[in-house]
Amino acid sequence: MKAEILAVGTEILLGDILNTNAQFLAQELATLGIDVYYQTVVGDNPKRLEDTIFHAFSRADLIITTGGLGPTEDDLTKETAAKYFEEELVLDERALGRIRKYFDKTGRKMTENNIKQAMVPAKHGIVLYNDNGTAPGIIMEKNGKIIVMLPGPPKEVVPMFRKQVRPYLERKQESTVVSEILRVANVGESTMESMVKDIIDAQTNPTIAPYAKDSEAILRVTAKAESAEKAEEMIQPVMEKLKERLGEAAYAMGETNLQTVVAKMLLEQEKTIAVAESCTGGMVVSSLVEYPGISEVLLEGCVTYSNDAKMRRLGVQKETLDTYGAVSAETAAEMAEGIAKTSGAAIGISTTGIAGPDGGTEEKPVGLVYLGLSIDGVVKTKEIRLAGSRSRIRERAVYQALDWLRKEMLHGEQR
Amino acid sequence: MKAEILAVGTEILLGDILNTNAQFLAQELATLGIDVYYQTVVGDNPKRLEDTIFHAFSRADLIITTGGLGPTEDDLTKETAAKYFEEELVLDERALGRIRKYFDKTGRKMTENNIKQAMVPAKHGIVLYNDNGTAPGIIMEKNGKIIVMLPGPPKEVVPMFRKQVRPYLERKQESTVVSEILRVANVGESTMESMVKDIIDAQTNPTIAPYAKDSEAILRVTAKAESAEKAEEMIQPVMEKLKERLGEAAYAMGETNLQTVVAKMLLEQEKTIAVAESCTGGMVVSSLVEYPGISEVLLEGCVTYSNDAKMRRLGVQKETLDTYGAVSAETAAEMAEGIAKTSGAAIGISTTGIAGPDGGTEEKPVGLVYLGLSIDGVVKTKEIRLAGSRSRIRERAVYQALDWLRKEMLHGEQR
Repeated sequence: MKAEILAVGTEILLGDILNTNAQFLAQELATLGIDVYYQTVVGDNPKRLEDTIFHAFSRADLIITTGGLGPTEDDLTKETAAKYFEEELVLDERALGRIRKYFDKTGRKMTENNIKQAMVPAKHGIVLYNDNGTAPGIIMEKNGKIIVMLPGPPKEVVPMFRKQVRPYLERKQESTVVSEILRVANVGESTMESMVKDIIDAQTNPTIAPYAKDSEAILRVTAKAESAEKAEEMIQPVMEKLKERLGEAAYAMGETNLQTVVAKMLLEQEKTIAVAESCTGGMVVSSLVEYPGISEVLLEGCVTYSNDAKMRRLGVQKETLDTYGAVSAETAAEMAEGIAKTSGAAIGISTTGIAGPDGGTEEKPVGLVYLGLSIDGVVKTKEIRLAGSRSRIRERAVYQALDWLRKEMLHGEQR
Repeated sequence: MKAEILAVGTEILLGDILNTNAQFLAQELATLGIDVYYQTVVGDNPKRLEDTIFHAFSRADLIITTGGLGPTEDDLTKETAAKYFEEELVLDERALGRIRKYFDKTGRKMTENNIKQAMVPAKHGIVLYNDNGTAPGIIMEKNGKIIVMLPGPPKEVVPMFRKQVRPYLERKQESTVVSEILRVANVGESTMESMVKDIIDAQTNPTIAPYAKDSEAILRVTAKAESAEKAEEMIQPVMEKLKERLGEAAYAMGETNLQTVVAKMLLEQEKTIAVAESCTGGMVVSSLVEYPGISEVLLEGCVTYSNDAKMRRLGVQKETLDTYGAVSAETAAEMAEGIAKTSGAAIGISTTGIAGPDGGTEEKPVGLVYLGLSIDGVVKTKEIRLAGSRSRIRERAVYQALDWLRKEMLHGEQR
């Protein structure tokens, strides 16, 4: 099955909105084993929309559209598809009822033109009811051609696709494709690739694809089989082999991130934690707070930006600051120890560094960061050197601090 | 001039990368007054790439491509364009020299296949030298058709377009379009629109377009004139009218954000600040730390997540916590006062609330947040009610806290 993704909307065409729907749909279709050959964006223009849909069907079997299902006269996706399929649109009372209800729930008044949103194909149509907005989606299928029309907002597109469209497309596919992701911390994409190259090369089904996303290296293992269960069975031994090779750098599977993994470890191990930050300025503690329920173990954070605050809040010695400077292993150690002691937490973690763009010297350049860690009374420090913008350096420092904490907790578990 | 934007690359087609280049180019072309009718994404496939370029030129005068200028055999944008223009590609020694130099600078070794990147059209071509990567861009122009070929990585696309392509396109356009942006804090898009509707309706050149971006309401004022200076002159009185109408909600012009504006005000007014956070967990202080040089006025932040930390670090009374709870105006007030006193800062600002998803009650639901502000010894509090996910509630609380601080500092200035 050859597919195309079509976004309808002047906002995307003019660059007011980023087309994240196209990325989401492309990823989903890839995991379904459906080939996507083109993505297109067209504005709310009847002639150009018609040309685009007719042209796309001249080379594809499946078109997935987003947008153009709204209540205004500009919104023409359904009407244009109906023209292609030579199909009539009729009022769907159930869809209209749901639209009315949605307006009631959000305390707004439905206007007459919303009735247009409840018009659906008389035949050959499947209505995709919308739990997160007014416009229902529509699937039309005739003579081996399929168009799946989804609303525009991503918060409506994602659940509608996952719940209603994906199962429909799965039934069309003779084989199923299942992917699983292995997340690797603090190893570059090319290093990771060379570490597992022989495993990648020895595989054809499942395939193993390395890529980088949000500054992390990721391995995607994809298996094709007659059923999802079978595909998952095929993935498992390959995943085990990869994990064994990558060791503790392979920190999680699936859709998660490092701070979530660390937060869960803290809760599981029932370790209380407190954070003392300088250059990261609250980003370490803030990333932990993102995890609901963290209040059980997270006692507090101190952003001791000034030297005075480092001494007053954490008990860092004036002598240490004078002798070694605020950006030093010695200060990082006293910060970690100080926050653990004053808060009474089992773990104290600290950051101090030069995030730039100014403030660097030859001896202590921009990007130099010291991390401190006090676990159960033992204090360690780590020097790291980072490159990039101020925000990039801060983000990387947070990442390194959390990854170090993760590894130390792993070792603690093994002791 | 009718234009199309074409991204070449299998990574975008499969959804591994988000197509941010298309948004950037669409915005740039809009400000140049060039109409964009289609955006397309096609993979690294010779036949489909050729079809796409030929089809695009059947309806457009200008195509801007990104990607497909790399060193591998897959990279075919230049070759396909040369085919359309019936043009030969020849080696450009200067381009090759620059590629060699780029490899030297980054300490890597140039391989033979990079020579392909230095091939340029024999005639009718303009080479766009690349300061941020290896692949030069190319402009080809013949018989009223223009193709502008840019590399793939956004960090190469943005400067190359701004420095080299934009001036080239400006010369092609008879009139210039200039846009300026007015940023409005804490007013919804539709409320803002109704506040200025009569001004919008009375204007044709400049035009005024309201839109929402990153949860902010924005007004874009766009003038068309024979020169940029003339267009800017036309924008100014309209901008003044909008600012007067919107009052202090209109907080800045151009590409900036609320935390930058607040950080600058603190530095200008030489007001020291310290932050005490509960539900926002370090995000207020972290957003201020993003501004370089903030260390002159930002003394410290305390993320007093536990009640114990609120008492120990900030001197919040046990009685207050017992009587009113951690999420209360009374606690917010003592937190703000406490952080100002203990740090010695002129301004203390605090947040305490229920970010969810759990922990809400009928009396104190998820999304209830109290802000506290101590300025020059005067303490105030504010109750806000927010909706959405945990991270959305935290982000909105940070935004509200910063906007409140901004307004209080404005009033202080006026006193």
